[in-house]
Formats: sequence, C-alpha cells, structure tokens
Amino acid sequence: MEFAIVGLGRMGGNMARRLARKGMRIAVMNRTFDVTEALVKETGHVACVDYAALIATLDTPRMIWLMLPAGDVTEAALTALLPLLSPGDLIVDGANSHYKEDAPRASRCAHFGVEFVDAGVSGGVWGLENGYCIMFGGSKAAAARLQPYMEALAPTPATGWLHTGPVGSGHYVKMVHNGIEYGMMQAFAEGFALMKDKSEYALDLAAISELWRHGSVVRSWLLDLSAAFLAEDQTLEAIEPFVADSGEGRWTALASIEQGIPAPVMTLALAMRFATQGKHDYAAKLLAKMRQGFGGHAIKHS
Amino acid sequence: MEFAIVGLGRMGGNMARRLARKGMRIAVMNRTFDVTEALVKETGHVACVDYAALIATLDTPRMIWLMLPAGDVTEAALTALLPLLSPGDLIVDGANSHYKEDAPRASRCAHFGVEFVDAGVSGGVWGLENGYCIMFGGSKAAAARLQPYMEALAPTPATGWLHTGPVGSGHYVKMVHNGIEYGMMQAFAEGFALMKDKSEYALDLAAISELWRHGSVVRSWLLDLSAAFLAEDQTLEAIEPFVADSGEGRWTALASIEQGIPAPVMTLALAMRFATQGKHDYAAKLLAKMRQGFGGHAIKHS
Amino acid sequence: MEFAIVGLGRMGGNMARRLARKGMRIAVMNRTFDVTEALVKETGHVACVDYAALIATLDTPRMIWLMLPAGDVTEAALTALLPLLSPGDLIVDGANSHYKEDAPRASRCAHFGVEFVDAGVSGGVWGLENGYCIMFGGSKAAAARLQPYMEALAPTPATGWLHTGPVGSGHYVKMVHNGIEYGMMQAFAEGFALMKDKSEYALDLAAISELWRHGSVVRSWLLDLSAAFLAEDQTLEAIEPFVADSGEGRWTALASIEQGIPAPVMTLALAMRFATQGKHDYAAKLLAKMRQGFGGHAIKHS
Amino acid sequence: MEFAIVGLGRMGGNMARRLARKGMRIAVMNRTFDVTEALVKETGHVACVDYAALIATLDTPRMIWLMLPAGDVTEAALTALLPLLSPGDLIVDGANSHYKEDAPRASRCAHFGVEFVDAGVSGGVWGLENGYCIMFGGSKAAAARLQPYMEALAPTPATGWLHTGPVGSGHYVKMVHNGIEYGMMQAFAEGFALMKDKSEYALDLAAISELWRHGSVVRSWLLDLSAAFLAEDQTLEAIEPFVADSGEGRWTALASIEQGIPAPVMTLALAMRFATQGKHDYAAKLLAKMRQGFGGHAIKHS
Repeated sequence: MEFAIVGLGRMGGNMARRLARKGMRIAVMNRTFDVTEALVKETGHVACVDYAALIATLDTPRMIWLMLPAGDVTEAALTALLPLLSPGDLIVDGANSHYKEDAPRASRCAHFGVEFVDAGVSGGVWGLENGYCIMFGGSKAAAARLQPYMEALAPTPATGWLHTGPVGSGHYVKMVHNGIEYGMMQAFAEGFALMKDKSEYALDLAAISELWRHGSVVRSWLLDLSAAFLAEDQTLEAIEPFVADSGEGRWTALASIEQGIPAPVMTLALAMRFATQGKHDYAAKLLAKMRQGFGGHAIKHS
Repeated sequence: MEFAIVGLGRMGGNMARRLARKGMRIAVMNRTFDVTEALVKETGHVACVDYAALIATLDTPRMIWLMLPAGDVTEAALTALLPLLSPGDLIVDGANSHYKEDAPRASRCAHFGVEFVDAGVSGGVWGLENGYCIMFGGSKAAAARLQPYMEALAPTPATGWLHTGPVGSGHYVKMVHNGIEYGMMQAFAEGFALMKDKSEYALDLAAISELWRHGSVVRSWLLDLSAAFLAEDQTLEAIEPFVADSGEGRWTALASIEQGIPAPVMTLALAMRFATQGKHDYAAKLLAKMRQGFGGHAIKHS
Repeated sequence: MEFAIVGLGRMGGNMARRLARKGMRIAVMNRTFDVTEALVKETGHVACVDYAALIATLDTPRMIWLMLPAGDVTEAALTALLPLLSPGDLIVDGANSHYKEDAPRASRCAHFGVEFVDAGVSGGVWGLENGYCIMFGGSKAAAARLQPYMEALAPTPATGWLHTGPVGSGHYVKMVHNGIEYGMMQAFAEGFALMKDKSEYALDLAAISELWRHGSVVRSWLLDLSAAFLAEDQTLEAIEPFVADSGEGRWTALASIEQGIPAPVMTLALAMRFATQGKHDYAAKLLAKMRQGFGGHAIKHS
Repeated sequence: MEFAIVGLGRMGGNMARRLARKGMRIAVMNRTFDVTEALVKETGHVACVDYAALIATLDTPRMIWLMLPAGDVTEAALTALLPLLSPGDLIVDGANSHYKEDAPRASRCAHFGVEFVDAGVSGGVWGLENGYCIMFGGSKAAAARLQPYMEALAPTPATGWLHTGPVGSGHYVKMVHNGIEYGMMQAFAEGFALMKDKSEYALDLAAISELWRHGSVVRSWLLDLSAAFLAEDQTLEAIEPFVADSGEGRWTALASIEQGIPAPVMTLALAMRFATQGKHDYAAKLLAKMRQGFGGHAIKHS
C-alpha cells in the first residue's frame, strides 16, 4: 500500500470513499481519529492514528495526498511529514492553496528528496457520485505514478483529470476555474432576479430553470443545481442575502491585476459578493450624504 | 394541414427539417422560392410560393410560425398576413423580437380574431440535432394547440419547451436567457485569456477546456463549444478581436435599468463587446490626454 | 416685463431670487399661491395667481421658464399654456426632462408659433450663491433672447452658460453631466470606504478630504461637499446605507446602450445604487443557494 | 543646512524649485550631475555630487527626501545611504512606493537610529506653481521637523499637507487618492465619448468642458485639465487609444480585494485601461468564436 489521504473532511472523505468503490485500498488519517474509524468501517481502508503510523503503514515510495484546509494547516502537515518521509516519496497538496505557494513548497520538499504535486479538485459534494475534476501540476514522473488514482477519482479513467504542467499550474488552473464560476453564478443570479421582479408575467422560475437545462445555450451544471433548489422553493424567503467568498475568487481577481489582463466580470462578481456582506454600506452612506449636499435630497436615517 | 413555418433561414429551415424528421408534414414558405423548393425536396413538406398560397394550403384553424428577422420584416409579414387570416387562426412570432412589441401585436391580431404567441427559440445551429429550447407566451388555448409541434421541436416531448405565461413572457424570458449567456461567455473568455497569458505554465487551453467538461463546476454547453474550437486552434491568430452584439444583450441591460434591478455583470459583458468594436477609443484617447495633462506622461501618437 | 418663472420649488425659487439679486424683475407663478406671495415679498417680483394672470402680466414676446417636475407636470403646464400664448413667445423647459421628449415638444410648440428651449440646470441648492451652470438647446434667435437671463443666473456673465446646439442638446448634455457625476461620486465613496476600513492607520477622513482639496488631482466640488459633511461627522452612523437614483443616471446608462458606446463606470455606479436599495437581494440569495448546492457551504437563514 | 532632495526629475526638481521660490536653501543631488548643476544654477541650492558629499554638506540631524522611482532605485538609495547616516537623521520616501514596503523600511532605518517617513505627493507638473498636496506617515516628532518644508511645498502653509498617521499611512492614502483619480478619469472619458458620438447635436466638447467648470456638480481639476486640451483639439485624431497604468491604480484594486471592501468602479477603470492596451484581445477572439460556435455568426478574420 503506497497511497494515503490525510484529511477526511467533506472532500477528502468522499475521495477516499470513491477510491474504495473503485476497488482501491488506501491508508487514511484524520486529525480526529473517530472520523478515521468511521470511514474505515465503511470503506475497508486502513486507519492511521498519526503521521508515524502513516509512515509505517505505507510502502515506499509513498504517495500522500493532503486534503486539508489551505494555509497554516497544510503548512503544519508538511512540516510534520517531511522529516519522516524517504527520498522518492510524493506529496500532493489537494487544498485550495494559492499557486504562488507551490514552487516554494516544491523546493522545500526537494530538500528531502520528496516530489511535490499541486492538485486543484473540483466537484464538491457531488464528486463522490459523479467523479472529481482534477487538474494538477508536477513532474511527468509524478504524474505517471498518480495516474491510477486520478483515473479512479475522475468521472471516467479517460476524462476529468489533467496533468496541467509544472508545479503551480494545477492550483493556477483551479483558481481560474473558480473565477469563471464566480462570473457564471453572478450571471445566473442576475437573470433570475430580473425575472423574479417581472411580476406582471408571474414567471415560474423553477419551470424556467428546468426548461433551460434542455437545448438552451446556458445549459450547465450550475443551472442543474439551480433548477433543483428552485423546484423546492423559489421564494427564497428564508435565506439571508449574504454571499461568502473564498480565497480563489479573490486570487483570480488579484492575478488579473498582476498580469494586467482584464477580468472585469469575474472581479465584479467578487465585488458584488463583498457588497452582500455589508461592505458597501459606508460607501452608500457617503453617496447619500453627497446627494444631500449638492441637491438637498432627503436621506434615510437609521 | 394546419401548420406552417414562414422564413426558412438558419433557424426556420432547420426547425422545418426537425419536424420532418419527427414525421410531421407542414407548409413552408420563404421570401426566395428556391430556398423553399430545396427544403421541400429534402423534407417532403408542402411548398407555398406566397401568403395567398399559404392561406389556401392550410386548413383552418391555421397555425403560422414566423421565423423572420425581428423588426420591420416581421412587422411586414403581419401586415400582409392578417387580412388574409380567419378568426381562430394563430400566429407565432419566433423572432428575437423585443418583448414590449408583443402585447401591441397581440391586440392587433385580436382585431382579426387571430391568436398571437411570442416564442423565444434557443439552440442555434445545433437545434436540428439536439432539439430547440422554446419558451413562449400566449393563452392556454394557444399553448394547447401548439403542444404537438413544441414536443417535436424540443429535445424530448417532455423537456425543453415551456408555456411561460401571458403574451410577452416568452420573448422576455428568452431575452434574459441571452443576457445570462453574455455574462457566461465573458466569464469564460476572461478565464481563458488569463491562462493564455500565463506563459510560464505553457497551459494547453484545449486540454483544459476538455478537462473541465467532466465533473467541474463550470461544465456547460458553452464550454463544450469552446473545447471543440480550441481543439482545432487555440492560438486564434486568424481571428479579429471584434465581437458583435445583438438586440437581446442590449435589451436585457435596458430592462435591468428600467426595472431598477442590478445586472452589472450582464451589462458589463455588453460594454466589453462595445469596447472590442472600437467604441471605447475616444474615451481612451481622453484618458491618455488627461494623464499627460496632470503628470506629463507620454502619449502614443498614431 | 417679458420673463417669468413657473414653479418656485427648490430650484425655481432660488433662480428667481438670484435674478432679483441681479436687479431683474420678473413674473413668478407657483401651483400654491402662498409660495408665490412669500417669494414676491422677499424679491419684489410680480406674483401671478394662474396662467391667465401670467399671460396678462407679460409683454409680448413672452419668455416663460418652466421649472417644474419632469414628466406629467411639465406636460400639463404645456397643455395649459400653449393655447394662451402668442406667436413669438418662448417656453423654456428647465426640468430634468428626457432629451427625447424635447423635439416632439418643440414641434408641438411650433404649431402655436412658440419657440421651445430645453435647459439643463446644474448647481443644486448652491446655485443661488454660486450661480447656476446652464446648458440649453434651441434656435440661435431663442438663445439671443435668453442671454440676459443666462448671464444673470450663471456664476458670471461670461461663464457657466452655453447654447449647446439644437433642441434636445441641452437636456442631453445635462444628462451626460449627471452620468459623470454618478461615476465620480462612486469613485469617491469607494475610496473613503477603503480608508475607513483601514483601521490600523486610524485615518481621519475629514482631514484627508480637506487635504485633497488643495493641490491634489482629485480636487473637485464633490470633494468640497464631502469635506464639509465629513468635518461634522465621519462615522455616518445615523445614515441608512440607501442611495436613491434619479432619471438622468438611468438615462445616461440607457443612452450608452442605445448608442453602443461603453460607459461601464457610469452604469456600474447606477447598479451599485440599485444594490443599496435592496434590489440585489434575490440575486444574493440565489448565489448563497448555488454555493450550498455545489459545495455544501453553509447559508444564513433569516 | 539640514534638508536635501535626492532625485531631481520631473517631481523632485520642481519641488526643489518651489522651495527656492519660498526662500529656502537646500542640498540637492541627482544620479547625473549635470542635472544637479543646472538646477543649482537656477535656484541657488547646494549641489552634491554623491551621497558622501551630501552627508558632508548637511548638518545633523539631517533630513533627506528621496524623490526617486519606487522599487529598486529607492531601495538602492536606502542601502547606500543608511550606513552613512547618523542616529537622529530622517529619510523621506516620496516615491509612489507600495504602502506595505514602508513598515519594513522603517524598521530597517530604525536599526540605524534613523527616522523613516513615507510621503505621497500629488500635483504632478503643476505642483511648482500651485503647490503640492502631500500626505505623509511617520512619528509626530518627524512630522514636526518636516513641517516647515511641508508648508513651503504645499499650496499654502495651512493647506494641502497632512500627517496622516503612522508609517505607511501616507502612501496608503496617496494610493487611494490615485484609485479615485482612475474612477473620476474614466467617468469623464465615458461622458465625453458619449457626447462625441452624438453627432446629430454636433456638440462642442471644448465649450462644454469649459462650461461645466463654472457652477456644475462635476467641476474639478481633472475637468480644468480636460477643458485646456479640448480647447486645442477635440478630435484627438493624432492620439493612440492606449492608456498606460501605474502601480497605484493596481494597488488600490488589490487593496480592495484584500480588504474585502468593494471598489468596483476603481477596479473597472483599471480593467478598461488594460483593455486599451490590447490585453482583452484574446478574450474578444474567444467570444467571437463562441458566437460562431452556437449561432453560426460570422467572425472577422485578420
């Protein structure tokens, strides 16, 4: 057994389950051991209580796929693991890490003779059933070693995984993917909001979203998802108009500015999320005061 | 025979072909008769040389689907047809007409006892094979009469067609659909442009677009199309960076402003198209002159 | 006495006051007569109780400046006045009317032999002291007749008023002026909001706005106004983050789309106002639901 | 003599001239000595051929204002200067440096007992006549020492200079200032472009820009500048529609994303500049290909 997944949360746990369904047996480890035990009971994988156990369990050359939160947690895992690994071992960072962190991490791994691969994984909670879309950067040798696992995790062995290029390219491509996602989501949200407002037509947004899934130009998985929740409730009365944002949406906007390539729609989709978080309120107050200042227009007081 | 298609261009011709494939026989008419003749030879439909022949060919109550350019041409067809029709006949406007034109047209038809239905048809050149996505507004009675044809034109009898509500709602929903399309397209274009620019990774955009079709959050028909043309050529060297815009993209932006519902991403996607058409050039020259004015920054002279 | 102002609200009343300060005596009329009486007591102008009195008071050829709400009220005034006027009389529409309404109104006036002038008036509540900035469209003859009044209303006889061209051009130029105003306001609001948020610097926004008034690139009247209200209170705690929008901001965005000239910043400034009005809430709810749909991300419930 | 300016380019040279006009005598130094000599001949300042001469010329505690290009050049100057300075000396970085560089530089200076002040200077080529708008961060003691020079450089002793807060705050405030400038410039450019396109009115943009300078809501220094160059030529036929961008515009957009405070108008103004630089071309080609892909729409070939 050469392969392990560390981090059995929503993503890592289901990836381990998918590998089990494909007949693969791997080592698994999680910060809290009861999660590991539950998964092992379900999948037949091998439970490891800590990194020492993990190292002891795996044959060399090892492949350890970290599916941990990006940033400090992933960093701490590297720090703990690297001294325990052997030359020829391989680490995959499957977190949504910033692509600029990859090359330094690869250098750090290289000091221990360890290969580093950065993997962007899309598919969310549906990946277990549908397969994951995986884009990863690293050496060709690393890609060859990982191939059987990529084929099992992806929707089919021949589709949905790609060795995108050198270290960093996997996370970069995943970042851009998420930037596109932001733009597409905002486009759909605007369209449905327009129709919701057009009360004289009493439009059935659930029926329209279902309609568009078939033969229209905008058919897409995001539309499939929207049709599913709109079928349950299209009033959305119980939902707060608050949209969180995550690292990759911001990073794509930052990359656009650093590269000097305009990405106005992606960037604006991000700004609109900030606005839903109340971060445009002070600006709005200033605008109200300016209007009062030059035109005597009334302002609302809270 | 009760049903006819008038206008056998890219859309109307293929719709007639699809009905023939589904075993339906209809009357067809086109401005230039040789197009009609060619289609009839291919499909077995009944050729009509002009409106008089069309009226004579169809049994009452008739259903005549206009698949003509929006605006003057569609208007002229109505003017020619209405005096020839009988009470109980039905006209479908399948053009990308503005939804505000529908209610007046329905009133005009009603003076002749004729039903009016506005239909938005998506699917483009792929509709013949995949089926069309059709959203239409009108009375319930009209919808019931059109149902067999909708079932044949759509991807399946049960999917891809919808009676959206009263007259006008079909074109309104189609308009919003196209607005969403503008936003989605711009999001993809920005993402691929970012990756194209990231030369240190030497990313293969054809492979990435194909990758994302499987299991990713952005999988969509627009991505399918993009993967197809990127597979042929991802340099796009021979293409002018000029993007046309059509009525519905503008109308969605106008509707957003009239309704007071923000659609910033759709609207910006439209503005970016204007910019590709050279319509931002005078603004850019002004900006260059302002920079020179306050900072002495160099400007380029043509 | 040839000149009258009809409509003595915030704008019209102060314009009449400014003319009085410049030594001019005119006829004035208002829907509610007590407003007229109060103004006359203050200015020495001649009060007219209704249109009949106004017509009787003015020598021909008359000049009547309507300073009424755009739309129905201005339209009703024209309907009431035109039959009473004499050939050679002149009407100024000083409201924020849409420029497309001007040519039809000019035609209507021409049937009575009456000249029509469309005037855009900027300056708000400060115009009384500083003078108004007036841009107006109409014939050269009309411009010549109005010149003495323009010279008195403007900041100086030589500055701040312009005969912009044919009928419609005055309101068009005023509309674009307001579109620019939207963009500038949003730019300032964003900048101050960024600084407000940068708590580690504990920036004094009142001092900074005052600073920038002197020698900076962004010095402007909008900044002068902002410095004034920020000096009083920079917390803005009592203000609702709600910004109204008026016709001309929307019309500029519409004109941009109709003309096919990109005005993305102006248009986005408008969309951000819509968002402050709660009109992005449904879109935000959809976005939250989509995120939950694909990623299992938590959403807030109200 | 305690005060020196290093870097006698467009900004530094004029600042030295302004100090001379105010009766101050300082030391000046430039990379190429003939520039220094020319300035000294004009102003009566004291020429220094290199850092050693500068150190020898100035009495302690020294104040040395670096007016060099941001980045490597400023960094190299610090590296050269610090070992030569004495505890109690003070360095001002007047470049458009990124505010995040300031705190580390201040620490580095502190190791030598040297005070560090970051100064953002606005006013461009007009500062010599009008005075500069200066915002600077540093200790209160440093601010007190610099005050006489600030009073001379600013438009008046009492206006146009501000101690904004701790180290970093000067460059931060200047950065936001420039972000606002981007938004305002784009708003004006869009407005004039709309009017330029409205050919039926044959609008005189020079006259309109001059008009708005008096009494309008958009009156501003950027408008003053625009009126000046439009008076010379409003066709702008000889100008390339290419707009460069500088660090601070990008940094404001980056700061907005990092802070999570929406600055959509500033950010979009930046993206529009990128587009004028041809950086939207690949995206435009993709859009054209997508349109062809789904609708069979014609594309332009180069």
